[in-house]
Amino acid sequence: MDEDITIFQEITLFKNLTPDKIRKITNILRKVSFLAGEIIMREGDVGDTMYIMQEGTVEVVKSLVMGDEESDKNKVFTRLDGTQHAVFGEIALLEELKRTATIKAITDCVLYEIKKDDFLRLAEEDHEIGYRILLNLSRIVSARLRKADEDTVKLTTALSVILHEV
Amino acid sequence: MDEDITIFQEITLFKNLTPDKIRKITNILRKVSFLAGEIIMREGDVGDTMYIMQEGTVEVVKSLVMGDEESDKNKVFTRLDGTQHAVFGEIALLEELKRTATIKAITDCVLYEIKKDDFLRLAEEDHEIGYRILLNLSRIVSARLRKADEDTVKLTTALSVILHEV
Repeated sequence: MDEDITIFQEITLFKNLTPDKIRKITNILRKVSFLAGEIIMREGDVGDTMYIMQEGTVEVVKSLVMGDEESDKNKVFTRLDGTQHAVFGEIALLEELKRTATIKAITDCVLYEIKKDDFLRLAEEDHEIGYRILLNLSRIVSARLRKADEDTVKLTTALSVILHEV
Repeated sequence: MDEDITIFQEITLFKNLTPDKIRKITNILRKVSFLAGEIIMREGDVGDTMYIMQEGTVEVVKSLVMGDEESDKNKVFTRLDGTQHAVFGEIALLEELKRTATIKAITDCVLYEIKKDDFLRLAEEDHEIGYRILLNLSRIVSARLRKADEDTVKLTTALSVILHEV
């Protein structure tokens, strides 16, 4: 996987890792392919893998409203592209949790997969890798938490305005 | 601070650290006191310190609605107690961000303070400490993110129900 090292150096999750450390990470990566139309992960399923996109386009679909899983209404859609080497499912490196979105291959896709147990084993062997990846990951998760907290305040404000006006 | 090592071993943030590693952490702790009524941190201020409670009771106050910072309406209140050695402000170990809640001393309080720069310096010197604390911290933050995401879905559902019914 030597040709790929430069790709991984660009990824936020692997920031501040030397090429040597990145090479150790590539040993736990597995290249996986999905055909256009296939579901890569499904919202609500428990997962223990994260993905780095290499080729193709995926659609991220997230339910906004409870009890409405089957319809396309009340969902948000985002597209991620292989050329940006987008990363998703990275919280699965920490613990097995329910996926918070469905990811579907829009074109044929090639991705790199990392399994939680392989990551934690590598981090126990090489604490520097563990420390640097987790510093990057926890900053990513904390940015998302800040965004989610802001959304909560906005939604509560909207509800409060509506309930005072009706 | 030898008498305090057992306290820190009980704290989730320091889980899976040996007494030796905990002792290294106590070297970057500073004991700080607040009088009843004093503000320990203020929502919206940028902070670079986290706190572990040792004695006393604090009140956590968080605004739920925008533009209503001065009134007590539309706020959530929680109390934290020294006997549980509650931890707050821990995201400041990762980066300097705005505080998401105000913390006020209800009684005279004694706390341990850790500064971000001291933590990151220790983690660079001892990657195992960095790795283990960040694994614990990122799991704490990811649990909060899950909770915030669930809140968003509940609020969007409530809004959607109301907007269809009025």
